Amino acid sequence: MNTIGTRLRLTIFGSSHGPGTGCVLDGVPPGIEVDREDIQREMDLRRPSGALGTPRTEEDLVEVLAGVVDGATTGAPVVLFIANRDTDSSKYERFRTTPRPGHADLTALKKYGESADLRGGGQFSGRMTAPMVAAGAVAKEVLRTIGVQVAAYTQKLGPIEDREERTFKEVRRQGRDNPVRAADPAIALDMIHEIMEARTEEDSVGGVVRCLTVGLPIGVGEPFFDSLEGELAKMVFSIPGVKGVEFGAGFRAAGLRGSENNDAFQVRDGDIYTVTNNAGGVLGGLSNGMPLDMKVAFKPTASISREQKSVDLERMEDTTIKVEGRHDPCIVPRAVVVVEAATALVLADLCLRGDFIA
Amino acid sequence: MNTIGTRLRLTIFGSSHGPGTGCVLDGVPPGIEVDREDIQREMDLRRPSGALGTPRTEEDLVEVLAGVVDGATTGAPVVLFIANRDTDSSKYERFRTTPRPGHADLTALKKYGESADLRGGGQFSGRMTAPMVAAGAVAKEVLRTIGVQVAAYTQKLGPIEDREERTFKEVRRQGRDNPVRAADPAIALDMIHEIMEARTEEDSVGGVVRCLTVGLPIGVGEPFFDSLEGELAKMVFSIPGVKGVEFGAGFRAAGLRGSENNDAFQVRDGDIYTVTNNAGGVLGGLSNGMPLDMKVAFKPTASISREQKSVDLERMEDTTIKVEGRHDPCIVPRAVVVVEAATALVLADLCLRGDFIA
Amino acid sequence: MNTIGTRLRLTIFGSSHGPGTGCVLDGVPPGIEVDREDIQREMDLRRPSGALGTPRTEEDLVEVLAGVVDGATTGAPVVLFIANRDTDSSKYERFRTTPRPGHADLTALKKYGESADLRGGGQFSGRMTAPMVAAGAVAKEVLRTIGVQVAAYTQKLGPIEDREERTFKEVRRQGRDNPVRAADPAIALDMIHEIMEARTEEDSVGGVVRCLTVGLPIGVGEPFFDSLEGELAKMVFSIPGVKGVEFGAGFRAAGLRGSENNDAFQVRDGDIYTVTNNAGGVLGGLSNGMPLDMKVAFKPTASISREQKSVDLERMEDTTIKVEGRHDPCIVPRAVVVVEAATALVLADLCLRGDFIA
Amino acid sequence: MNTIGTRLRLTIFGSSHGPGTGCVLDGVPPGIEVDREDIQREMDLRRPSGALGTPRTEEDLVEVLAGVVDGATTGAPVVLFIANRDTDSSKYERFRTTPRPGHADLTALKKYGESADLRGGGQFSGRMTAPMVAAGAVAKEVLRTIGVQVAAYTQKLGPIEDREERTFKEVRRQGRDNPVRAADPAIALDMIHEIMEARTEEDSVGGVVRCLTVGLPIGVGEPFFDSLEGELAKMVFSIPGVKGVEFGAGFRAAGLRGSENNDAFQVRDGDIYTVTNNAGGVLGGLSNGMPLDMKVAFKPTASISREQKSVDLERMEDTTIKVEGRHDPCIVPRAVVVVEAATALVLADLCLRGDFIA
Repeated sequence: MNTIGTRLRLTIFGSSHGPGTGCVLDGVPPGIEVDREDIQREMDLRRPSGALGTPRTEEDLVEVLAGVVDGATTGAPVVLFIANRDTDSSKYERFRTTPRPGHADLTALKKYGESADLRGGGQFSGRMTAPMVAAGAVAKEVLRTIGVQVAAYTQKLGPIEDREERTFKEVRRQGRDNPVRAADPAIALDMIHEIMEARTEEDSVGGVVRCLTVGLPIGVGEPFFDSLEGELAKMVFSIPGVKGVEFGAGFRAAGLRGSENNDAFQVRDGDIYTVTNNAGGVLGGLSNGMPLDMKVAFKPTASISREQKSVDLERMEDTTIKVEGRHDPCIVPRAVVVVEAATALVLADLCLRGDFIA
Repeated sequence: MNTIGTRLRLTIFGSSHGPGTGCVLDGVPPGIEVDREDIQREMDLRRPSGALGTPRTEEDLVEVLAGVVDGATTGAPVVLFIANRDTDSSKYERFRTTPRPGHADLTALKKYGESADLRGGGQFSGRMTAPMVAAGAVAKEVLRTIGVQVAAYTQKLGPIEDREERTFKEVRRQGRDNPVRAADPAIALDMIHEIMEARTEEDSVGGVVRCLTVGLPIGVGEPFFDSLEGELAKMVFSIPGVKGVEFGAGFRAAGLRGSENNDAFQVRDGDIYTVTNNAGGVLGGLSNGMPLDMKVAFKPTASISREQKSVDLERMEDTTIKVEGRHDPCIVPRAVVVVEAATALVLADLCLRGDFIA
Repeated sequence: MNTIGTRLRLTIFGSSHGPGTGCVLDGVPPGIEVDREDIQREMDLRRPSGALGTPRTEEDLVEVLAGVVDGATTGAPVVLFIANRDTDSSKYERFRTTPRPGHADLTALKKYGESADLRGGGQFSGRMTAPMVAAGAVAKEVLRTIGVQVAAYTQKLGPIEDREERTFKEVRRQGRDNPVRAADPAIALDMIHEIMEARTEEDSVGGVVRCLTVGLPIGVGEPFFDSLEGELAKMVFSIPGVKGVEFGAGFRAAGLRGSENNDAFQVRDGDIYTVTNNAGGVLGGLSNGMPLDMKVAFKPTASISREQKSVDLERMEDTTIKVEGRHDPCIVPRAVVVVEAATALVLADLCLRGDFIA
Repeated sequence: MNTIGTRLRLTIFGSSHGPGTGCVLDGVPPGIEVDREDIQREMDLRRPSGALGTPRTEEDLVEVLAGVVDGATTGAPVVLFIANRDTDSSKYERFRTTPRPGHADLTALKKYGESADLRGGGQFSGRMTAPMVAAGAVAKEVLRTIGVQVAAYTQKLGPIEDREERTFKEVRRQGRDNPVRAADPAIALDMIHEIMEARTEEDSVGGVVRCLTVGLPIGVGEPFFDSLEGELAKMVFSIPGVKGVEFGAGFRAAGLRGSENNDAFQVRDGDIYTVTNNAGGVLGGLSNGMPLDMKVAFKPTASISREQKSVDLERMEDTTIKVEGRHDPCIVPRAVVVVEAATALVLADLCLRGDFIA
C-alpha cells in the first residue's frame, strides 16, 4: 500500500500529472517545531539543478494542511501538499503500445490493464519522492530532539568513485555545496563532467548514494523481522531506480575472513567503541552506537533519448523507440536528499517504537 | 515484532536454548498438500554438513501442531514446532562481561538490560532460521500451485566466486548435490577447500547467495512501499549475518550507462521477453516476467576461536577473548535454503495479495 | 492511530479549528465512478438542520485532491479535503481549568498535557466525522458495483421509539425526507418535538441509529478476530458519542431461549432464507445472506447550556459550569449518515479482503 | 486473521478436533512472573461445571512452549499449547447437508466450500476461547504490574437479572464462588435453576456478562479509530455468541437527557471523581479514571436437542433437525472468564501503546 511505518506512519498520495502530491504523517509527537521554510529547503535540494537535470521545472512549494499550529506539531497527523504546476502528459500515450525499456510500462499494463496510469505516473514516478522528502524534513526534526543527524552524499557516479572514508562532518560540510552532492569539490567536478558527457551522448548514468547517521542511541531496531537494516531496506527500495542496499562492508564483507571483518572493541575515554566499522553501525538488527553507514545503488535513468529496441504490442513485433520526454541524465544527485528522508523516516519510527523518544 | 506478511503471515517463536522453536503461518489457502516429510527435507538442507559445520547436532525434527488434516491445509493457521535437543548454554554467561566482536552481546545488553537472553539467543540466533525454513517449505507448496519455483546457490564464498551466468535448471540440478550448495562441482571443491582452510586457521569466511525464481507471473508486487524488492529485502535482512541485498545488475548497475543497463524488449515465439536481465526480473517494484534474480551478501561468521580484542565491561578496560562455543566456519551453505525460504514466503504473500493465487 | 482498514484503508486528518479536515482512502479499485456532487450530497445529510442543529454553519464543500481522473478512480489513493470556514475557538480556553462533564477535557489534559488541543478538537471532535462521511460516499460507490446498499434511520430518539420492523425499502424511501431521519413521518414529528423541547430546556437528548444493509453476499467477514461484527463495532465506536452496538436481537437475545432465538431455515423459490432475523444477518462472524441489521446507541450531547457541576482544576474545588458553545441538542439525526458511512467503509474493506470485489 | 493487537499481539491457532489449540503472545515485556499454575487456574474457570455444562470433558492442561524461563517472561513471544483429548467429530458430517439453525454451517460452506471444517471447528468453535483465556492470564499478570485488575460476572441469565450496582470488590469476592459466576448467592441459585430448566426442556438460554476494571490510569486508549471502546468491542465480538456490547449506561443512555447522563465532577480528598459513572469509565475513547464498565450480550447456545426447522441442501427442501452433539444449555458462566481475558488482552496492549507500562 501507500503507507509505511508503525508509530510514525507515512501515507503518500497524488501523481505526477494530477493536481499534486502529498502525504499524511501520523504519530509525530506534539511540540516538534516545524517550519514550512525548513521543509521547503529540503524540497529545494531535490529539485533538478540547471543543466544537470530535467527541463521540467517544478517549484515544489509545500503547503501545510494540518497538524501544525503556531509552528509546532499538535500530535495530530501532519498533512503536506505540493501542487503540480508544470505537467505535460502528451508524450506518454504511445508507451501503451511501445513500452520503454527499463520502465514499468509493460508490467503496469499487464497488472492494471487499461486503467493503468502511465503518465509519469503513480507508484512508478520519481515524483512520489517529493512528499517523501517533505515528510523526511519533519522526521529530521523529530530526530533532532534526541541529537540524531542524517547526511548523505554521492559516493559514486558512473565510473567516478569517491574511495575516501568520509566523516559525517565532511559530508555535512561539503555535500550541499555542489550540484552533484559530492563530499569533495574535485570529485564533484569529475562527476559533473560525467553527467554532461552522458547527456551529450543522449545517454544516462547511475550511481551510489552513501548515507551516514550519527547520534543514534544503542539498541534502535525491533525484534527479528523489524530489524534496523530490514526496515531501512524496505523503505529505500520504494525509491524508484534503487537496485541494491548494503550496510558497512556490505558485499565486500562476503569476501573477508571473520578475523578481518569483526570490529574489535576498545575502551577510549570511558566509552566503548569499535576500531573499524565494517558492521556499518548495526549488529543483530540493532544500532550499536557507531555511525550508521548505508549505501544505496541507483541504476542509470531508464529514459534516454537514444534509439532503443522495443516491441509493438499491437502487432507483436520488434520495433525501436526514442523516449523524447523530459528527463534527467542522472537522478543520483537529486536522490541524495530522498535517501536522507527515507532514512530519517525509518529511524524516527524505530526510535519511537523503542521509546528512545518520549 | 516476530511477525511478517500481510495475507500470508508468519510468526516465529522459541529460542536456541529453550524447549524449541516454531512458527505460525496464517493465511495458507485451504487444500495445499503439505507433507511432514517434505518439510523435513528442507530442514535437512539447513543442517550443518559434516566437517564443514558446527559440531552442534540437531536433528531438527518438525512436528505439525495445527492447520493440516489428512495431508492438506485446512485454511486455519499452520503451526510447526521443532524441539531443541542439543542445548549447551554454559559458555554464554561470560559474554555479559566480555562481549564478542561482531555479535550483538553488548548491543542487546544495552537495549534489554539484565533480562537479555544471550544464550545463543532469541532474535540474534541463527537458530530462528529453522522455523523460517519450515514455513518456507509450506510457502513453496503454495507457490507450486501456480508454477512458481525458487532455487538458490552459493555464488561466492570468500574469494571463490562463480562468475558464470547460471540458469535455473543448472541451479536446481547441481545446487543440492554438494555440501556447499555450489552450482558447479569444480567450484564446489574450491569452496570446500576454502572453508577447511578457514577452520584450520581458527577463522571464518563469508559469501554470497544468489536466488533465482522462475514462473512468476507479471505484476507481482504491491504499490509503492510494498514493492517486490522492498518486501524481499526486509525479510532477507532478518536472516542473521546478511549485510547486503541486490537485484539483477545491482551495485554494478550504478557504474553503467542507461544504454547498457536497459533491457531491450524482443518478441520471440509470440512472447515478449528481454534480451538481458539487468533488472533482475523487477521493474517499478513489480515482477516483469523474467527470472527474479536476487543476491544476498553474508558476512563471515562472527564467532571465531582465534583471540580477538574486546573489552571488560566491569573494569571498563581492554581485554581479549577467545570464543570457544560450537560454530560454523561458514554459514553460507546452510543459508542457501534459508534464503530460498525467505523468498518463497514473501512471494507467496505477494501472490496472494495480488490475487494471483485463488 | 488515525488509520483503519486492511485493503480499503482510511486515514483521516485535520481538526475542528485548523484549515480543514480530510482523508486519504487507499485501496479503492480503479474504475469506480466517483462524482464530487455525489460525495457532496452525503456531506449535506450530515449538516445541522435548521432549528434542530448547531448554529455553527459549515458548507462542508469537498475537494478531490487526488485519485480521481475524469470522474473515475485510478487505483491510487483518493484524497478528499473539506476546508473549515466558520471556526470560533475563543470559548474553549476555560475548559482547561473547568472541564465539561461528559467531555474528554480532563482526560485529554491528563494524557496529552499542555499540548492537548481542546478547541472542539482533534480526535474528540464530532467534526472528524465529516471526512468519514466523504470517504463513506466513495465506499458506497465501491459497494454499489456488487449491488450492496446501506441505509440507516433514527430508530429511537430519547423516549420516542420506532417499534416497527422496518424494511430496507421503507428506510430508503422515508429516511431522507424528514430532518430527524425517521422511517415514518408521524414518528418524525414526535422526534422533532422532543428535540425542540430539549432545546427549550437547555438540555440534550440521545437516541439509537439502526443501519440496514442489503445485497451483501454470503460469507463476508474474515477469520476470528476480523469478524464482521468486530470490524463494524471498532469503526462505529470511533464515532463520538457512541455507547453501545448490537446486531439483530442484540441484548434482547440474552433473555431468549435458543428455541426462540435460532432463526429457522426455509426454502422459498429455490432460495434458502431464515424466517426470522434474530442473528441480524451475521453468523459465526460472517454475513449469512439476510439483511445486516445493526443498532448503535448514542448518548445525549454532552454540551448543554444548563448549569452543571464541575471542578476548578487550579483550586481543586467544586464549581459549576455553563457550556455556552454552539452545539446540537441532539446529534442523532446527523449521525445517521455517519453510521452509514462507517458501515460502508467496513463492508467495502471486507468485501475486498474476501475477494467479493474484483 | 487470527492475530490481534499492536504492541501486545495475540495469534491463536488450532481447532476443536485436531491435536490441540494454542497461542503466541508477542510483545510481553521481559520479567513478568508467569506461572503455569496461574494460567491453569484461569483455564479451570472456563471448564464446564458439572450438570450445568457440556458432557465433553477436557482437562485443558496448558503447556508453555516458549517465552518463559525460570518463571519469568524473557521478552520473546510466549507460546502456550493446550492438547485436545476428548474429540468426537462423528456427529458433524451431516450438518453439511442439513445446516443447524443459529450456526455458521451454511455460511461457512458457501464461503469455504468443501474444505470447510465444520467439526466444531476453527473460527466458529467456542473452543478457540481456550487459548484466549490462557493468553489472558498472562495479560492479567502484565496489568498487575501497574495495579490494574479485571473481574466479570453473570449479570443476567435469561430472564434472571442482577439489578444491583455491584462494586469490583463484591464481584471479586462472590464471582468465583458459584458455578454460574453470579455476584450474589441468592441470584446464583435462581440462575442455576434457570439453566436446569432449559436443559430439561431440551433448550438453551442466553445472558449478559458485565466486566469491571479498576486501577486503570487516566488516558488509556489511542487516537480516533483505536479508541478504548473500539478495541475492546472488536476483541469481544470475536467470542462466539456475542451479539451486543455496551459501556456504562449504554443503550439506556439513548433514552436519557444530557442533564441526566452527564457525570458530574466532584473533588473528594484531593482527587477528582465523577458522582455517577454513566460513561462507564470512558470519555472520548480514553479511560477517565472511573471503573471501566462493559456489558456483553450472549445469545442462547445455538445447539439444542429439540427438533428445529432446517433445509436439506441436496434436495433443496424443508426438513427438520435434532442436534445431538454435546453442548452446554448455557455458555454464559463459562464465558465470564473469556470476557475477562479479552478485556485484559486489550487493556495490556493499550497500556503498552500509551507507555503506561515501561
